[in-house]
Amino acid sequence: MSTDAGSRTYARRDSGQLAAQAAEQEAFVSGVARELAGFLDSKREMLTAISPDTLILLDSIRDLVTGGKRLRALMCYWGWRGTGGGEANADIVTAGAALELFQAAALIHDDIIDRSDIRRGGPSVHRQFSRLHQRHGWSLDGERFGHAAAILTGDLCLSFSEELFASIGAPTAAGTRAREVFNLMRAEVMAGQYLDILEEVSGPHKPAGTAVQRAQSIIRYKSAKYSTEHPLVLGGALAGASAELLSGYSAFALPLGEAFQLRDDVLGVFGDPATTGKPAGDDLREGKRTVLVGLTLAAAGEEDARFVDERLGQQELSDSAIERIRAVMIDSGALAAAESLIEDYSATAFAALAALPIPAGPVASLRALATAAVRRKS
Amino acid sequence: MSTDAGSRTYARRDSGQLAAQAAEQEAFVSGVARELAGFLDSKREMLTAISPDTLILLDSIRDLVTGGKRLRALMCYWGWRGTGGGEANADIVTAGAALELFQAAALIHDDIIDRSDIRRGGPSVHRQFSRLHQRHGWSLDGERFGHAAAILTGDLCLSFSEELFASIGAPTAAGTRAREVFNLMRAEVMAGQYLDILEEVSGPHKPAGTAVQRAQSIIRYKSAKYSTEHPLVLGGALAGASAELLSGYSAFALPLGEAFQLRDDVLGVFGDPATTGKPAGDDLREGKRTVLVGLTLAAAGEEDARFVDERLGQQELSDSAIERIRAVMIDSGALAAAESLIEDYSATAFAALAALPIPAGPVASLRALATAAVRRKS
Repeated sequence: MSTDAGSRTYARRDSGQLAAQAAEQEAFVSGVARELAGFLDSKREMLTAISPDTLILLDSIRDLVTGGKRLRALMCYWGWRGTGGGEANADIVTAGAALELFQAAALIHDDIIDRSDIRRGGPSVHRQFSRLHQRHGWSLDGERFGHAAAILTGDLCLSFSEELFASIGAPTAAGTRAREVFNLMRAEVMAGQYLDILEEVSGPHKPAGTAVQRAQSIIRYKSAKYSTEHPLVLGGALAGASAELLSGYSAFALPLGEAFQLRDDVLGVFGDPATTGKPAGDDLREGKRTVLVGLTLAAAGEEDARFVDERLGQQELSDSAIERIRAVMIDSGALAAAESLIEDYSATAFAALAALPIPAGPVASLRALATAAVRRKS
Repeated sequence: MSTDAGSRTYARRDSGQLAAQAAEQEAFVSGVARELAGFLDSKREMLTAISPDTLILLDSIRDLVTGGKRLRALMCYWGWRGTGGGEANADIVTAGAALELFQAAALIHDDIIDRSDIRRGGPSVHRQFSRLHQRHGWSLDGERFGHAAAILTGDLCLSFSEELFASIGAPTAAGTRAREVFNLMRAEVMAGQYLDILEEVSGPHKPAGTAVQRAQSIIRYKSAKYSTEHPLVLGGALAGASAELLSGYSAFALPLGEAFQLRDDVLGVFGDPATTGKPAGDDLREGKRTVLVGLTLAAAGEEDARFVDERLGQQELSDSAIERIRAVMIDSGALAAAESLIEDYSATAFAALAALPIPAGPVASLRALATAAVRRKS
């Protein structure tokens, strides 16, 4: 009886704490949104002076940083709070906004590279510009104009991200751990993305036996580190975390990022377009050589494997071909193997999270974020 | 007799001083080259850890920052020296190297945007990657791979530029004038480049009467400011120049940059491929709506103007069409008008230079740099 009452009390306290955490997280996310809006607004005058025609670059960036999961900003925030950083702090809001701008820059260029015409259910930035071209009936090639304009918008966004990061001042100055993480994050994403496109073209010529391993390495650098590990470590570094705590953060966030990206790969083939905001089978048309694809090529029979291998990267992939590839992934056990990998990475991440010497509040928030990241449908 | 001897003495002193300036400049340029090599070398370990396959990104950047005119680094240096900055100073070398990396990033993306396959007589970065694809007989589309890899290489280079700039520490920290200039420079280049591609597609639909004015505005933002004005002002700001001196720097360097870019436009049509390292008439094939083109469309007869207008941006422009466009530019007086504009801008620049309250040495060096920039053949 007393035990029962105790656990009820505990449950009540726990739910009260979760509500407080949620409110705090909400306040931070609103702060990041305000910071982004304010920063972009502050650029209007400069761009108008060049030419009002350039304001569209700002609008594209604004659209992209409005909404989204804010996963990176939130990892950064809870890394900061876990290390004892204060609740209402301007620096951590600015760092979160800089991370969101960095991600927007990466997405803009990534969509050109992957020829993704759709982002979050609307046209991607290069498509917005090619539509602008079409709407005005301008000269020359609209697609080429769209790509060129999106390259420049991404460059502007990348510079803005860094400008905002540097504006934090002493905590992100030269020689600080936070600055080191920020520099490493950017280089790793770009190098990782290069490995990704290299695998698309050279993967079919490399040993099938190491395809899964190569895909895992790509995941780590192009996505896992910058989606979860670097933001969390950055937040910790800004709050003055010890090297030991930062290692603990990595031990949690790197496998979490790997699980997160594996989930992305599964959604890229099996996701519902209504929730992912991307056409069905988009990853297959792009020719992404994901871990799921590697597992499929290893586990499928020779004929099925050749069928999948030959169709990756075909822009005009039919619905029935996508359907057959999905069937091969299911029947060969590759999908189950991918889900099992997600479970393994998640288990490693959650165990490392439980071992972190940080307050219960940030642990609970990180657990909620992590759960959403690996179980998500979009 | 005494006057004669006096002027000989003066000439001797002057030539001695010029030699000393040249040696000093040479030492700075070597320092920048060493800094760039050292910085890029310091990234090898990180990239090797990701995958040795990514080292090619570093090699592409290294090739591009080896050689070149070093115009931006030198403007920065003499802005610094003119303000009283010391001769052998690590910060100004690092700032020069950061500017060179920024320019390399801009060139890499610019070559994708302009579809320029040749840079300094060799293949541009995206062509290097599409050749790599071809050499290995990889799968899917080699051109697409080349563009994607060059987008990522440019992004990496842009991040490196900023990393190096931030590494200077307090002199480029948040809130300093140097940091402001660096931020503004990047945003203006990207917005200016956007205006450039916008004019390519929308120019033919806009009033011909304002084409020259539009082209002049494009020149200012996409090139003049970042090639000469911002680097000079940056050097001055790093040495603690007053707002008044920085205004004087702008009064000299902005018209200089405009003359510099007009020279570039003339070379883009009339330059000798053997010295420019670019195919003859490359700017015409790219469809660049330069001041020279604007002057031509305004001055030529209706039939000639239409001939030029319709051929701009045609990838398969014949040699005889290029020849006829050149003839129209000469016969209409447009080329002479462009040369006259270059003279006007240069005269304004040199007058402002002479009025600068800085020592004779930096003035002489800036005059030599400026002369080379507007009289160059490549």
